[in-house]
Amino acid sequence: MQSKILSRRDLAFLLYEWLDVESLTQRPRFADHSRETFDGALDTAERIATDLFATHNKKNDQNEPHVVDGKVVLVPEVKAALDAWSQAGLLAASQDYDYGGMQLPCTVEKAVVAWCKAANIATAAYLLLTGANANTLLKTATPLQVERFVRPMLAGEFFGTMCLSEPQAGSSLSDITTRAVPDPVEGPEGERQYRLAGNKMWISGGEHELAGNIVHLVLAKIPDAEGRLIPGVKGISLFIVPKYVLDAEGKPGERNDIVLAGLNHKMGNRGTTNCLLNFGEGQFKPGGRAGAIGYLVGQPHQGLANMFHMMNEARIGVGMGATVLGITGYLHALDYARTRLQGRHPAQKDPAQPQLPIVEHTDVRRMLLAQKSYVEGALALVLYSARLVDEQRTAPDEAVRTRAGMLLDFLTPITKSWPAQWCVEANSLAIQVHGGYGYTREYNVEQFYRDNRLNPIHEGTHGIHGLDLLGRKVSIQQGALFQALGEEIGRTVARGSDVPGDVAAYAEQLDAAWRRVVEVTQALYGAGDMNKTLANASLYLEAVGHVVIAWMWLEQAIVAHAGLARAERDEERDFYRGKLQACRYFYRWELPKVTPQLALLAQIDTTALDMQDAWF
Amino acid sequence: MQSKILSRRDLAFLLYEWLDVESLTQRPRFADHSRETFDGALDTAERIATDLFATHNKKNDQNEPHVVDGKVVLVPEVKAALDAWSQAGLLAASQDYDYGGMQLPCTVEKAVVAWCKAANIATAAYLLLTGANANTLLKTATPLQVERFVRPMLAGEFFGTMCLSEPQAGSSLSDITTRAVPDPVEGPEGERQYRLAGNKMWISGGEHELAGNIVHLVLAKIPDAEGRLIPGVKGISLFIVPKYVLDAEGKPGERNDIVLAGLNHKMGNRGTTNCLLNFGEGQFKPGGRAGAIGYLVGQPHQGLANMFHMMNEARIGVGMGATVLGITGYLHALDYARTRLQGRHPAQKDPAQPQLPIVEHTDVRRMLLAQKSYVEGALALVLYSARLVDEQRTAPDEAVRTRAGMLLDFLTPITKSWPAQWCVEANSLAIQVHGGYGYTREYNVEQFYRDNRLNPIHEGTHGIHGLDLLGRKVSIQQGALFQALGEEIGRTVARGSDVPGDVAAYAEQLDAAWRRVVEVTQALYGAGDMNKTLANASLYLEAVGHVVIAWMWLEQAIVAHAGLARAERDEERDFYRGKLQACRYFYRWELPKVTPQLALLAQIDTTALDMQDAWF
Repeated sequence: MQSKILSRRDLAFLLYEWLDVESLTQRPRFADHSRETFDGALDTAERIATDLFATHNKKNDQNEPHVVDGKVVLVPEVKAALDAWSQAGLLAASQDYDYGGMQLPCTVEKAVVAWCKAANIATAAYLLLTGANANTLLKTATPLQVERFVRPMLAGEFFGTMCLSEPQAGSSLSDITTRAVPDPVEGPEGERQYRLAGNKMWISGGEHELAGNIVHLVLAKIPDAEGRLIPGVKGISLFIVPKYVLDAEGKPGERNDIVLAGLNHKMGNRGTTNCLLNFGEGQFKPGGRAGAIGYLVGQPHQGLANMFHMMNEARIGVGMGATVLGITGYLHALDYARTRLQGRHPAQKDPAQPQLPIVEHTDVRRMLLAQKSYVEGALALVLYSARLVDEQRTAPDEAVRTRAGMLLDFLTPITKSWPAQWCVEANSLAIQVHGGYGYTREYNVEQFYRDNRLNPIHEGTHGIHGLDLLGRKVSIQQGALFQALGEEIGRTVARGSDVPGDVAAYAEQLDAAWRRVVEVTQALYGAGDMNKTLANASLYLEAVGHVVIAWMWLEQAIVAHAGLARAERDEERDFYRGKLQACRYFYRWELPKVTPQLALLAQIDTTALDMQDAWF
Repeated sequence: MQSKILSRRDLAFLLYEWLDVESLTQRPRFADHSRETFDGALDTAERIATDLFATHNKKNDQNEPHVVDGKVVLVPEVKAALDAWSQAGLLAASQDYDYGGMQLPCTVEKAVVAWCKAANIATAAYLLLTGANANTLLKTATPLQVERFVRPMLAGEFFGTMCLSEPQAGSSLSDITTRAVPDPVEGPEGERQYRLAGNKMWISGGEHELAGNIVHLVLAKIPDAEGRLIPGVKGISLFIVPKYVLDAEGKPGERNDIVLAGLNHKMGNRGTTNCLLNFGEGQFKPGGRAGAIGYLVGQPHQGLANMFHMMNEARIGVGMGATVLGITGYLHALDYARTRLQGRHPAQKDPAQPQLPIVEHTDVRRMLLAQKSYVEGALALVLYSARLVDEQRTAPDEAVRTRAGMLLDFLTPITKSWPAQWCVEANSLAIQVHGGYGYTREYNVEQFYRDNRLNPIHEGTHGIHGLDLLGRKVSIQQGALFQALGEEIGRTVARGSDVPGDVAAYAEQLDAAWRRVVEVTQALYGAGDMNKTLANASLYLEAVGHVVIAWMWLEQAIVAHAGLARAERDEERDFYRGKLQACRYFYRWELPKVTPQLALLAQIDTTALDMQDAWF
């Protein structure tokens, strides 16, 4: 039976036939690897995801974390799944051998992680936060900090969090007020110790009993000599603040001054504890006095920069989460459509004839095709972005590395936001295919829809990414990032133009769309008023996003066209035809949507800018 | 403080300034009424909705109906709210005085009912199902049936349900298999009695203890002499099947043979019991033997026609439910945007300056304006449709009545489906305005989003309404319905063209869009293959829906333009400016979306039709 979590065939198509990850094994870092080791990791991920993650996805949703005697209680299956994942070495899959890792390429690692996310996004979150935390520290922490905090995280002994937001500071991180004051007492091996006080909101994985310790990465401000906090992002520093202070041997010891102030109860992603944490209120007194003990990471006032080191990758991670929820919803809808009998063909006038599987109805096929075009387009973009990470890190040629970094920077807001928008839409269509059954918790698709609705909100809202793309990524380095993307699209167009038939027509359509993007971008920057330029930044993000996904579909169509010519078995031919038909769907149904969007952008529309509060 | 349930100002604008419901008081049926009595009913509805419905909306969601000792338990606030509504006479607001009703016009009644729906859609459902049931029976039941079943429902003593679907027959009602066999025993006063057996799925309000009885309206088939069921819709008849068989005095007596087989657990609308009911399994033995006792309504084999008598109105009701969930979400988001402080204007470089209410950010205003344009456009369409019901029923001139019926028939799939699609989108934007808070159950908007997602599914799925519009409504009566709508739009365009400035430009834009719809409709019917014509029926529904809402916005803009010229107070001017700006938003941001949709339809696209199951 085909998995309803993810499609191995599609992953193989993207990884091997398109992105050629096998070629990475030529590079020293990946020299021990081969397609067999990649597939081995994917096999393991699929097995654990199927046996231990998917099996408690609904239970997790229906038995939300809750507090008993001051401790957060989760269903026991969460720990079992996480432990199995760590023990299989998958938590550290892309890390150095030296840290117990597998040194998998980022592209393969993302495909590995996709399995546990698709099977159970809420349980997977604990792993991902821990990984993001470890990656941040590996960039800037001292060797001692790496030894004491990162190694146990990569071994699955400690878990990690990211503590950025505060109740009064979400999108506007410059307004955080958590204070970090140098402690007279020295930390381990002479490390400077701080005492933190403040409230941190939306902390996923913020409190639980899943691991021996929780390593909080906390943004806070060091007051000046007069005790004042520096306004703005410049005042922000980064700290490690563990739930339990480590003893000299690195074992969790005294309880730190961090208190669970309340759990948030979400629409979806219910299995992930999410909470408000109070630091330094004095309920615990580590070292004999109030104040949460923390250790500075990197330089003071560089907190945001240090935290954002891992942002590109974390945002690809959000894009991947959104994508795979879309994929599993699509696979569930497809399975349902093939088995649910209802109605007859319009031409069939005899009601005594048996009912048909609903996949026979054109409108159901439209809904499945739309889902396929969204989720496989999104998956291509996410894996392409991961491939850029690999290029940026390990390409032998520095120019290639630089260029990959530029493309990655430009694409990141899209890789995060496009799947978050359109794979929720895919999940809505998966419900619609199920009819009334899809609206019930007796089936699975409504949970995917609820789980996925988080993705346009966290790791930067949709609006924030629009501003990032149009206000920053388009213009930095004199537009070199934007231009680099245009060149890449141009190359694909050139290759596509050589393929006979529909693919060449798509290439032409994409070429025209990108030229229009260039014109509109120039018009937006020619407006002479950044307020007006940025007024429709979200629309710009959406329009460019659609063009980028069209590019991803042209890339896939070129490969599928070649695959179809080469294929010997019916099953293989069907796979490639499906790819080509989904591409056709995207070019006929989706890409044309950008025409009115770009027309509106070209007019530097001020409808929202002109709207007054009093008129609502 | 402004209500976050609905806006009385907007209702007054639509009812009095636009739809001129006061003029209805010239008609004999409404002669006792006046703007004061209409407002009185709205005042009562607002008060009960605010005090008794809104107050348990979240509690209802969080304490789903469940079974204890074979009885369905609801939170007690449900019954208190329903009783208050009935006792205030609002359940029968539009019914004849003779049935204890108020004889309110349908337009006003829909506005009254909007209050309890917006405040608590799940609790309101019990009322609406009872009303729909009563309306169906008033059309076709015998005087005795009206006396015994309808009167107690309109008094709030009995509640009603509609039992159409079965587990194997949802959209395809022709496939129901519930059997109704004539009973040798006579019913009350010689009425023919039947015994029913079968399973009915998705029965909202199907089992509870809220009222003295539950009157199920059941579709079933009467077997022929050989015991065979007639295939197709022709075999379907309609029956009254009460939970408790009535005694000679009309009091609930013996328990009928209907058993709760299971509750469905929905994503939203959780407060409404929804269940699978088994009829005639023999657990109860009314009159000494198995089989659910039922009474035929109207003629045999006319069940679907009899049931569909109330469909137009029920579908307007679904459109209204979707709309008001959109409105309350919008009002919550607006209130939040005005009070939540976050960030600063782009030009403000000093992070020490205080944060602003987020309504000051253009992207937040865009999201609010989009919601306003969706929900107020939808509300206009729903009330316009209700106004057509009033014309159809009470206009003095028969030609006017006929024409109103034609317009209503054409618009019904749109009035049901457009709000169901776009007001879910509005609810998604309401979440987005709230950021992370909106994703939690500590706030209200996530529930609106979950509740609203039902509306594209029930009372005919989105796809079914697409087929109804393009496959039936467009072509019946040689296209007379379609033409009638075109004439109405043409009249509005003519009036709009006389208004100087933007409004005239909108009129021109609408005129062009409608002309394109006419061309595309001709192309679709010229395709010579109904399979191809209907392959994109959902897209047709969406494109025509957007044009219809643009028409509703032009109507509103014409009235608002006049209102603005007349207004003396700032507050009034602000209201009309808001209307005009929302209209501008719709014409600039929304209406252009139909251009690529109509282009695709004109090509008689076969992407979905050509897709093969094996290619997925």
